[in-house]
Amino acid sequence: MQDSPEYLARKKFFNRLLTIYGRKPCLEALQDKHVQVYRLHLSESNKPAPILDEIIALAKARGAEVLYHDKRQLSHISKNSKQDQGIAMDLVLAGFTEHEDYLADFTPGEHTFIALDSVTNPQNLGMIIRSVCASPATALILPRKGCAKLDALVIKASAGTLFKAPVIRCDTLMSCLQAFKTKGACVVGLALDAKTSLENESSAGTRIYVLGNETDGISPDVSRLCDEQLKIPMRNGVESLNVAVTASLIAFRSLLRQ
Amino acid sequence: MQDSPEYLARKKFFNRLLTIYGRKPCLEALQDKHVQVYRLHLSESNKPAPILDEIIALAKARGAEVLYHDKRQLSHISKNSKQDQGIAMDLVLAGFTEHEDYLADFTPGEHTFIALDSVTNPQNLGMIIRSVCASPATALILPRKGCAKLDALVIKASAGTLFKAPVIRCDTLMSCLQAFKTKGACVVGLALDAKTSLENESSAGTRIYVLGNETDGISPDVSRLCDEQLKIPMRNGVESLNVAVTASLIAFRSLLRQ
Repeated sequence: MQDSPEYLARKKFFNRLLTIYGRKPCLEALQDKHVQVYRLHLSESNKPAPILDEIIALAKARGAEVLYHDKRQLSHISKNSKQDQGIAMDLVLAGFTEHEDYLADFTPGEHTFIALDSVTNPQNLGMIIRSVCASPATALILPRKGCAKLDALVIKASAGTLFKAPVIRCDTLMSCLQAFKTKGACVVGLALDAKTSLENESSAGTRIYVLGNETDGISPDVSRLCDEQLKIPMRNGVESLNVAVTASLIAFRSLLRQ
Repeated sequence: MQDSPEYLARKKFFNRLLTIYGRKPCLEALQDKHVQVYRLHLSESNKPAPILDEIIALAKARGAEVLYHDKRQLSHISKNSKQDQGIAMDLVLAGFTEHEDYLADFTPGEHTFIALDSVTNPQNLGMIIRSVCASPATALILPRKGCAKLDALVIKASAGTLFKAPVIRCDTLMSCLQAFKTKGACVVGLALDAKTSLENESSAGTRIYVLGNETDGISPDVSRLCDEQLKIPMRNGVESLNVAVTASLIAFRSLLRQ
């Protein structure tokens, strides 16, 4: 039963859903033309309010299912009864894939992946999603653990690209990188003190570039998994670049090299 | 008198000063090891407070002059009596030059400049300063009119690089670009609908890349001054990149091309 094609297709679909909550965040998401809405969840206890009418109208116009729940059920869906304001919404992240599904169909070749290790600032995460989506890079590898939560701030900073960006999801970066390595991928850690500099790196084959936390860099466990280390050379004694800028330089590099 | 070498040197020095105000912004600036402090201005009416003691101690340790003024004088210095909280500070922007001074000594050659036309978000401005400072680009051209004010937000987003970044100051971008053009510079406007794409552009000589406002792009007057237009190609139907990301890709391009 759990291996039937229907079950697996359903699981894949539900893995692509992002649940957000709160009246303003839901309204703003619906005002973004890139958003795909699957379901709108409302609490039966909501008192009438113009913002709710607006949300319901927009959701229906997008073809979303509108469901009513009791307060307790809604808090199960939003997972945040204190801040959900009686509303939650399932959005479809069309470009999201679980790393097991991705690797099952993966053909090694010339691939650039950007992987994030504890990037906690939602603005940086949103900008990285936007840049990787626009760039020639194959996909972004985004672990559930350690990175900024996908929320209204990330959606905004991504300029709506969150809903179409190619993103490979995993629980922890460690297990995902290990799985990619068995497929022949080379894991490259961005490090300020690396010996190899961007302009001298040979970048053939499947390469995963790991970017670490804004303050602490790559975590020791992930660092040990790296096959190579790489730095971006900097002038004027600048110590580091913004992590979203670093991700963008790597993601667009193949284009700039031509 | 107004043309004496002493007068001109003094004028150059004062053009490099940035006055900030408010207790928290001044303390945070002093906690940044990159900051150069010229003078600390205090109102005689300030009541004793631990944060003031801390600020005075840090400013003295950096060799800054500490001056006391009456409230009215201080508001002349801070230019914001409502928010100065009885304190202002003159910081030295070591890499700043007025465009007239810069062009007087300018030798045409292989130069990349990034010029900003109404970039109003302080975080974007700070990130651009940080990236240009670290990059092989020659300098950032930053007009006083239209762009975000240099304040505590910009300092923070620049990660302290504001105090050493090579920045050419002008009143308006128009007059500065015109002056550069008389020296043979080519002005290139970044535009989403440009025909020439980054990977096909020949980038010899002195080139000034103009980046426009986050929402509206380059203003019509500046656009008419551009000799060429350039776009960054984008995949997945992404409409635009963050302006700081665009600036970084242009600024680091010569490095990535090698």
